[in-house]
Amino acid sequence: MVVLASVATIQAQDNTAPALMPMPAKVQMGAGKFLVNSDFKVALRGREDIRVKRAAERFQASLSRITGIPLPGSKDRVIEANFVINWAGDGEKVQKLGEDESYRLEVTPTHVHLDARNPLGVLRGVQTFLQLVQIGPEGFAAPALVIEDSPRFPWRGLLIDVARHFMPIDVIKRELDGMEAVKFNVLHWHLSDDQGFRVESRKFHRLQQMSSDGLFYTQDQIKDVVEYARDRGIRVVPEFDMPGHATSWFVAYPELASGHGPYEISRHFGPHDAAMDPTRDSTYKFLDDFIGEMSRLFPDQYFHIGGDEVTGKQWAGNPKIQAFMRTHELKSNRDLQAYFNERLQHIVQNHGKIMEGWDEILHADLPKEVVVESWRGQKALADAVRQGYRGMLAFGYYLDLMQPASQHYLIDPLGGAAASLPPEEKQRVLGGEACMWSEFITPVNIDERIWPRAAAVAERLWSAEELRDVNDMYRRLAKVSERLEWVGLQHVQSYRLMLERLRGGTDIQSLRVLADVLEPVKVYARPKTKHYETTTPLNRLVDAVRPESDAGRIFAGMVQRFLDKTATPEDLTAMRNQLTIWRDNDQQLAPVLQSSALLQEAVPLSQTLSSLAATGLQALDYWNAGGRVPAAWRQQQLDLLKHAQAPQAELLNMVAPSVEKLVAATLPE
Amino acid sequence: MVVLASVATIQAQDNTAPALMPMPAKVQMGAGKFLVNSDFKVALRGREDIRVKRAAERFQASLSRITGIPLPGSKDRVIEANFVINWAGDGEKVQKLGEDESYRLEVTPTHVHLDARNPLGVLRGVQTFLQLVQIGPEGFAAPALVIEDSPRFPWRGLLIDVARHFMPIDVIKRELDGMEAVKFNVLHWHLSDDQGFRVESRKFHRLQQMSSDGLFYTQDQIKDVVEYARDRGIRVVPEFDMPGHATSWFVAYPELASGHGPYEISRHFGPHDAAMDPTRDSTYKFLDDFIGEMSRLFPDQYFHIGGDEVTGKQWAGNPKIQAFMRTHELKSNRDLQAYFNERLQHIVQNHGKIMEGWDEILHADLPKEVVVESWRGQKALADAVRQGYRGMLAFGYYLDLMQPASQHYLIDPLGGAAASLPPEEKQRVLGGEACMWSEFITPVNIDERIWPRAAAVAERLWSAEELRDVNDMYRRLAKVSERLEWVGLQHVQSYRLMLERLRGGTDIQSLRVLADVLEPVKVYARPKTKHYETTTPLNRLVDAVRPESDAGRIFAGMVQRFLDKTATPEDLTAMRNQLTIWRDNDQQLAPVLQSSALLQEAVPLSQTLSSLAATGLQALDYWNAGGRVPAAWRQQQLDLLKHAQAPQAELLNMVAPSVEKLVAATLPE
Repeated sequence: MVVLASVATIQAQDNTAPALMPMPAKVQMGAGKFLVNSDFKVALRGREDIRVKRAAERFQASLSRITGIPLPGSKDRVIEANFVINWAGDGEKVQKLGEDESYRLEVTPTHVHLDARNPLGVLRGVQTFLQLVQIGPEGFAAPALVIEDSPRFPWRGLLIDVARHFMPIDVIKRELDGMEAVKFNVLHWHLSDDQGFRVESRKFHRLQQMSSDGLFYTQDQIKDVVEYARDRGIRVVPEFDMPGHATSWFVAYPELASGHGPYEISRHFGPHDAAMDPTRDSTYKFLDDFIGEMSRLFPDQYFHIGGDEVTGKQWAGNPKIQAFMRTHELKSNRDLQAYFNERLQHIVQNHGKIMEGWDEILHADLPKEVVVESWRGQKALADAVRQGYRGMLAFGYYLDLMQPASQHYLIDPLGGAAASLPPEEKQRVLGGEACMWSEFITPVNIDERIWPRAAAVAERLWSAEELRDVNDMYRRLAKVSERLEWVGLQHVQSYRLMLERLRGGTDIQSLRVLADVLEPVKVYARPKTKHYETTTPLNRLVDAVRPESDAGRIFAGMVQRFLDKTATPEDLTAMRNQLTIWRDNDQQLAPVLQSSALLQEAVPLSQTLSSLAATGLQALDYWNAGGRVPAAWRQQQLDLLKHAQAPQAELLNMVAPSVEKLVAATLPE
Repeated sequence: MVVLASVATIQAQDNTAPALMPMPAKVQMGAGKFLVNSDFKVALRGREDIRVKRAAERFQASLSRITGIPLPGSKDRVIEANFVINWAGDGEKVQKLGEDESYRLEVTPTHVHLDARNPLGVLRGVQTFLQLVQIGPEGFAAPALVIEDSPRFPWRGLLIDVARHFMPIDVIKRELDGMEAVKFNVLHWHLSDDQGFRVESRKFHRLQQMSSDGLFYTQDQIKDVVEYARDRGIRVVPEFDMPGHATSWFVAYPELASGHGPYEISRHFGPHDAAMDPTRDSTYKFLDDFIGEMSRLFPDQYFHIGGDEVTGKQWAGNPKIQAFMRTHELKSNRDLQAYFNERLQHIVQNHGKIMEGWDEILHADLPKEVVVESWRGQKALADAVRQGYRGMLAFGYYLDLMQPASQHYLIDPLGGAAASLPPEEKQRVLGGEACMWSEFITPVNIDERIWPRAAAVAERLWSAEELRDVNDMYRRLAKVSERLEWVGLQHVQSYRLMLERLRGGTDIQSLRVLADVLEPVKVYARPKTKHYETTTPLNRLVDAVRPESDAGRIFAGMVQRFLDKTATPEDLTAMRNQLTIWRDNDQQLAPVLQSSALLQEAVPLSQTLSSLAATGLQALDYWNAGGRVPAAWRQQQLDLLKHAQAPQAELLNMVAPSVEKLVAATLPE
């Protein structure tokens, strides 16, 4: 038995350490390399399993793609297999929560052995191997090592909201490919909301006919996605949000609602008042039929009923509902929703499923098998767990809030209020989900909004809690991002294409210099700046720029080292070069911005970048001359830099805070 | 009736003229612009036609994608349609050669009218409109104008060889999308050859089972592609190459061959000796059954039987065949092939198809309905036409030969020997086909090899013969290339990805500087340099670089203007800047090249670029000082530049000839 090094050993290594993400539980580096060449051959040593067979085929195809070496797995070559996959048991017919995903990967200079208890471990292990393969002076190779790995949490999800903006099947499939690459294991598919109902129901066909604008998945497509996900070790948990967030249902079936119809598909965002009528038996009859149908369509054991953000206004405005509440001694809307949830839970359970819902479903009368998903925070999760429920964290992982990967990365499902839970209660924290709500995304920019940031969440949910080195995370994230392109994700390409669309041509160099230092405004600032509807074009600069500016982050690091007096000579040169490029950029860019209706709003952003870069260069000059600056200049620049940090066109300049630091650290004469 | 300007009027316009490709027959610019915004609405005014309906949906989706403006075609908007499509008649059930593709497109500031006789004209017209839409200071808009358009040739094809390297269905579909965008109307699908048989036969299932390495299209996939192509106004003409280029058939059915088996799927390229036995009735029985099955699978009226490059060696070596030739007074292999073709033509005809084949099938006894495809040259085409056959040109349009777009562009089906044909014989020249033979392509680089160069061929086949302005072609080709990315083609992205693969990272700036000035060696030089098989990895720099170096072409233009004394001050600055970048590049690039096994062969290429750029800068200095240079220096540099033009790692430096011109034009002291 090989003694394995801890994660810390790996982290301490240099920049050429394997860029694995999520970082495995245990890695011990060996000596030498396994070369990938035309002799590469996989052998499967386990009971015949269609999922492993297909995984091996996809693995060979992926390896062939990232190396450019044909690996046809042809029968006519007589060489021995050098990549041997063993697995001990069959997987569950329907992938189960907590099903074994562990694997052991041993790479030697001549052979690779991948051992797993279960087909899922095979799926995870081949992804790790793919991340190990890099080109070097000898060719494509993986370093000799031994990895023993298993996930920390059994529920590692990505939520995709297809209600507010529909995403075609090919988008969903490529996200599943990305998920597989970083070992996510749940697609939480948010399929209905006020803005649309996205699944074909054969029982209630008006749902898709009247409530989807023609944008929905057929049952055949759903089945295809479920199988595609299963092949990749990913469970598909559907969410049908109720009793609120349900306007689209009422377009087709107004009798389900608590208020008067008719209803229209909503074009705007935020909580709506329309809610199901929890007092009528016909509502439950409908839901029983509907959930029965959907339970057969989605084989997963869990069924997400939403349950969030019921405003209660329709309930308050309906005398019959008010009377019902008095009769049943339901004192608040919360009580009424609990009544609804109890009945709903029975229906879900009768169809063989376990109910899952957002924080608001929590109510002491619900059976403990119900799973709570916390969007409100770590405290809400801890509270649910303390009450005996299982739960998971969505809070902190909202990709639509345009926060940096590091911020998501450092939030742990067992952090905050959950940190003080006793170990047996911690067991009930199942994991978490990165959430891609779709108010501001389209099929063109969704990849850029999800990737690569979601990979940081994937690592948080898979890897050791103590893994918190943000710099090393970013180093590895960059490599993962590169590989995700070979998986078929368009997060890099779409950024360029959207800039080209704005500019009306491929000569986007100066536009890109600006765009690279910008980020969209954070959290919920966008809808506060401008009125948005589902049909509002999302083709502006704010829709193109990345959620996180690498240029801004890298510059901030250099400035920090400069102020800490740990800057290298290369840092100093790079800072000055970078500031010079930024200062001079507006001269080229200004006419470009004027020539496009969509770029005119960026004129002040470009001017600001130039002027603050000039300030930064001046500040460096003053530093070189001793660090003393004229007091008036200093104050003037600080005012300018404060102004530069105000949102403009829903965009933030991510260099301004660093230049402000440079100036603020000078001493007035 | 509007009077329309000639093509020349359009060409004479400035660089902001609409970048249409293929250029329409007649364009008259109007005043003002039609703005594309959320009010955009299409109305269909013709007899209900599923193809037009789907085309309109795809058109709206494309327009939405290139503008970023949602155009859901929703029913709830009450605005009037502002894009009105009229068509007069139904299309043919199976698209016919010569079926009407004409259209009239009138764009005014408030409305667009697209009128066509036939659904095909609608398909062509919407593509033209998409090319007209550009962003400007007022938003996305198309200029007001009237276009009257129809193709010069009825057969405008792209051949894709899927035998030597298989291309999955998604590749074929995205090529069809690209074809639609530039108005190609035939996919010539080269489905069998020595290296593989790529179609499922239900009658002769050993063909795909034994002769494809598992890489073939099912009949369902074929039907799907045929329908996909039909939706885009593209006919699908299958080619099953026989009696030569047929080794893969014999792997499954050796009794068809003229030599002794057993046969293996061929892994190498070039003409093979294996050929069908034309003397046995069983051969024709087999072909009758097979062609019957394929005739039903492929609805097009034309059926391509290949017929090229029969070496005759197996025939010569088979005494029975020799005896048969004597008995039937067949004096040569050519006569024997003619005998084969006559019998084959009867079979093809009996199944309701018209036979098509390469030059070699031509023989006076074949009926005149047979169509000849000329790969040998314009003279071969003219000869066939003079004999009464219809023909088309493939010669000059071989995309695999790595020739510049301009070279393909200037070759005309009615040029060369065909130019002197009388008008009624010219009618029998049907058009031509760009040919993508697949010895050196993979699914990763096929897009880069086809696009954008094929668009120049598409224009040659659609537009006026007198359109020969290469500079304007390149201006428009660049815009088309940009748009083809939005269609889903990966010709731009894959170049970057392949460079990243070679380098093992995303920091490819210096590698790209080198790669941008390189081109693969031309014509059939690659297999002469190195032994290639179907399994040879195509992951080297030569497989990544573009067939045509834009950087080299642009630099050549500047040098030419410099020598012609028509260079602008910007030209002079750009030349010097460019040469400086090239000269200094090796310093950054050299360690990168050493770090990757696949890039080590490029070390001398990088050194050469640096040294010849230094020479170029010196030459400019001498020019500045009067143009006199030391004779020894001059000779030394010319020797170096000659050496720099020799292929290295199957790559050519495309800057060397221009620098040589600069030096050669100096006068020795």
